[in-house]
Amino acid sequence: MSSPKEKSASALASPALGVAVVGAGTVGGGVLDMLRTQRELLQKRCGYALNVSAVVKRNLADAAHLPFAECLTDDWRQAVANPDTDIVVELMGGCDAAAECVRAALEAGKPVVTANKALLAETSGSEGDVLALAAARHLPVAHEAAIAGCIPVVKTLHEALSGDSVHEIYGVINGTCNYILTAMEAAGASFEEALAQAQQLGFAEADPTLDIDGIDAAHKLLLITRMAFGCHLTMADIPVCGVRGFDARDIAYARQLHYRVKLLAVAKRSAAGVELRVRPAMLPRQHSMASVEGATNAVVIKSQFAGETMYTGAGAGAHPTATAVVADIMDIARRFGAEGYRHSNGVAAGGITPPPLLQQFSAPFYLRLRVIDRPGVIADITRLLAERGISIEAMHQNEAAPDRDVDIVILLHHSSDAQVQDGIRAVEQLPTVTAPVVAIPIEKLI
Amino acid sequence: MSSPKEKSASALASPALGVAVVGAGTVGGGVLDMLRTQRELLQKRCGYALNVSAVVKRNLADAAHLPFAECLTDDWRQAVANPDTDIVVELMGGCDAAAECVRAALEAGKPVVTANKALLAETSGSEGDVLALAAARHLPVAHEAAIAGCIPVVKTLHEALSGDSVHEIYGVINGTCNYILTAMEAAGASFEEALAQAQQLGFAEADPTLDIDGIDAAHKLLLITRMAFGCHLTMADIPVCGVRGFDARDIAYARQLHYRVKLLAVAKRSAAGVELRVRPAMLPRQHSMASVEGATNAVVIKSQFAGETMYTGAGAGAHPTATAVVADIMDIARRFGAEGYRHSNGVAAGGITPPPLLQQFSAPFYLRLRVIDRPGVIADITRLLAERGISIEAMHQNEAAPDRDVDIVILLHHSSDAQVQDGIRAVEQLPTVTAPVVAIPIEKLI
Repeated sequence: MSSPKEKSASALASPALGVAVVGAGTVGGGVLDMLRTQRELLQKRCGYALNVSAVVKRNLADAAHLPFAECLTDDWRQAVANPDTDIVVELMGGCDAAAECVRAALEAGKPVVTANKALLAETSGSEGDVLALAAARHLPVAHEAAIAGCIPVVKTLHEALSGDSVHEIYGVINGTCNYILTAMEAAGASFEEALAQAQQLGFAEADPTLDIDGIDAAHKLLLITRMAFGCHLTMADIPVCGVRGFDARDIAYARQLHYRVKLLAVAKRSAAGVELRVRPAMLPRQHSMASVEGATNAVVIKSQFAGETMYTGAGAGAHPTATAVVADIMDIARRFGAEGYRHSNGVAAGGITPPPLLQQFSAPFYLRLRVIDRPGVIADITRLLAERGISIEAMHQNEAAPDRDVDIVILLHHSSDAQVQDGIRAVEQLPTVTAPVVAIPIEKLI
Repeated sequence: MSSPKEKSASALASPALGVAVVGAGTVGGGVLDMLRTQRELLQKRCGYALNVSAVVKRNLADAAHLPFAECLTDDWRQAVANPDTDIVVELMGGCDAAAECVRAALEAGKPVVTANKALLAETSGSEGDVLALAAARHLPVAHEAAIAGCIPVVKTLHEALSGDSVHEIYGVINGTCNYILTAMEAAGASFEEALAQAQQLGFAEADPTLDIDGIDAAHKLLLITRMAFGCHLTMADIPVCGVRGFDARDIAYARQLHYRVKLLAVAKRSAAGVELRVRPAMLPRQHSMASVEGATNAVVIKSQFAGETMYTGAGAGAHPTATAVVADIMDIARRFGAEGYRHSNGVAAGGITPPPLLQQFSAPFYLRLRVIDRPGVIADITRLLAERGISIEAMHQNEAAPDRDVDIVILLHHSSDAQVQDGIRAVEQLPTVTAPVVAIPIEKLI
């Protein structure tokens, strides 16, 4: 990387940095839009004119509408190698080509900005770990936009809490799932109806797998955990359950019980180790995160000195995500050529020893069983649970329908997930239990 | 400021920076505590051992309990001049000596961290403007801790939203007032009772003037406005009304009407100009800020690209505030000696032209009138309001007490503050109106 002084010398009046935007989809378009309309402000605030050195788009045919059309190319290698490119913004998505592009940029000594959580999370802990490569080269792979859109989660963990010790983070960090759950509750819709609506409105992709199976939330949780606790985990370390096929009846029962269902990503650290999960959970209706609706994201961070802080904002969308990308570009510009890059990947790069990974957690649980309404069925269920040390707090049966299928909702006292799974396996053996048991943790203490 | 390379050369194994902590009260004690207990982590995260070069305390007699007692002195000049001091942390409070200390540090080329909103706000726009002096010297006066404790408001405005254009900020940014209002609502207490309780529990100072008169919130709002809009205002530019003497009846009526009262600091920018105020306001109970309770602070930022983001956390207290101070120290350490200082004071330093200041705002209003319950009194009031173009949405009289004093609550449609003040002056002339009229804006659209 050339020093700011060389830059200044070559164009004293207005030092400039060249930005290559690799990928011009939704977020890329948003970034180009901001670089164009905010140009003067950006220059005043960072001291450099931010010029677009290249816009890379795979299919140039439908790119005429983009700003900076004069820099269009379909060759990211050329864009990265371009001597006018000082900062590479990787917004291609996907893993393979994106990894190649980021590595090429780092090898050329160019700082990188990316919104690609899949790339960072899927390579995490592997030979090709992108963040480790960046740290080794003392260059940033800035990725604020990869986690919760415009909410400054990375900045908060790396900087605002840089003197603090974080012990718990949880959040609603997938807007698609939250949109679906919110729509199911508001309209009494089925999962399929809510997903179709989300797709129509652009809140879900045509192939929604990454979102609705919780993988996207797990990608983000992995990055969060790495920053907060210094754990170099792989995706296999995170137990994940998304919202695919979530039953509208469980939303309705949650409502009756004064809870709301959220897809919660949770990371906790204690003396014993680190506990991680992505899973639908019930939150008390008055909980500050229960009222986070639609595509909004929210993150709570609990730390030793600051206590509990909460951050809420748009978790996706062209402009909110572009805000985070542009902020990363600005951070790089403001310290361009300086030694500050050393620590820009935060705690993880500092080499804090990671605590062991815990596979277990405990919580109160909501169980829903589909049973044949017949004398003795409840006695059988409660006996099987009691034998396994599982304590029942309350039980509800809404309808009476002798010899027909009915729902029984059971609320359990604090139990370990393993206990509950064991109890469920036993209960599901009963001939009167006619469908898989639904188990949802209730996060009262979070 | 010496370059990091010189530093490294003198102690290759462990480059160190010396921190002088000037003022060892509540926040200073918290900072010293963090510098001691987090020492190893801080070093890993910023690359420098952070040594305490001096602890300045006016009264050394009661300082034996402090960590780093070996560096104690009552002479801040010596602490600042100490060649081992690389960073000066000003936590004295007050204005005169603090200003002298910060100026001495800047003149010695040493970056400053402060939690002193009074200092920054009271000098703002004057000859002795501390932030302007810092900008002129290309040195930071980092002040995250001056606004909303551990909530990263400065970092968000300067960095996370550095590519964005903010047009509205509002917040609950004085924990003392919020504690008092929350206690009044929860316990039905009078203002005096709630204040006494806050003082007992350490949520209010022995002399609570700065807090309960809204001055502290105005200090913070001025700094926020300066960062967000680039306005170099003075305190005289902000209309301020605190919570002193707030009537428990207005809390009770707000509750009946499904509102909660908060001391709100508001800054809005439109094409017409900038609108500022610190004033108690009613928020709909379901508003995300209505549930911010006790000493907690919350800030909402609305910007062109990110949309609406919200930040919540502890607004005061030794450790939450120290978290922000230490984060500022870490930021400085991470780029010590680098050119990055140039822009660390954000937009304001960039010289964005400030828009004109608007003295007016409009909102729906809550009015409470103390009147003699007598035929014709309501007709008189409504006529006077109607003559001034003020439109009534609803009117409540809870009790009937012929010829005795009763409360009448009137809810107004959207009206300008000037209209309402004019209406109040007219109504207060009526012989049947026996006490000053209370007017509280209702922030439905915020």
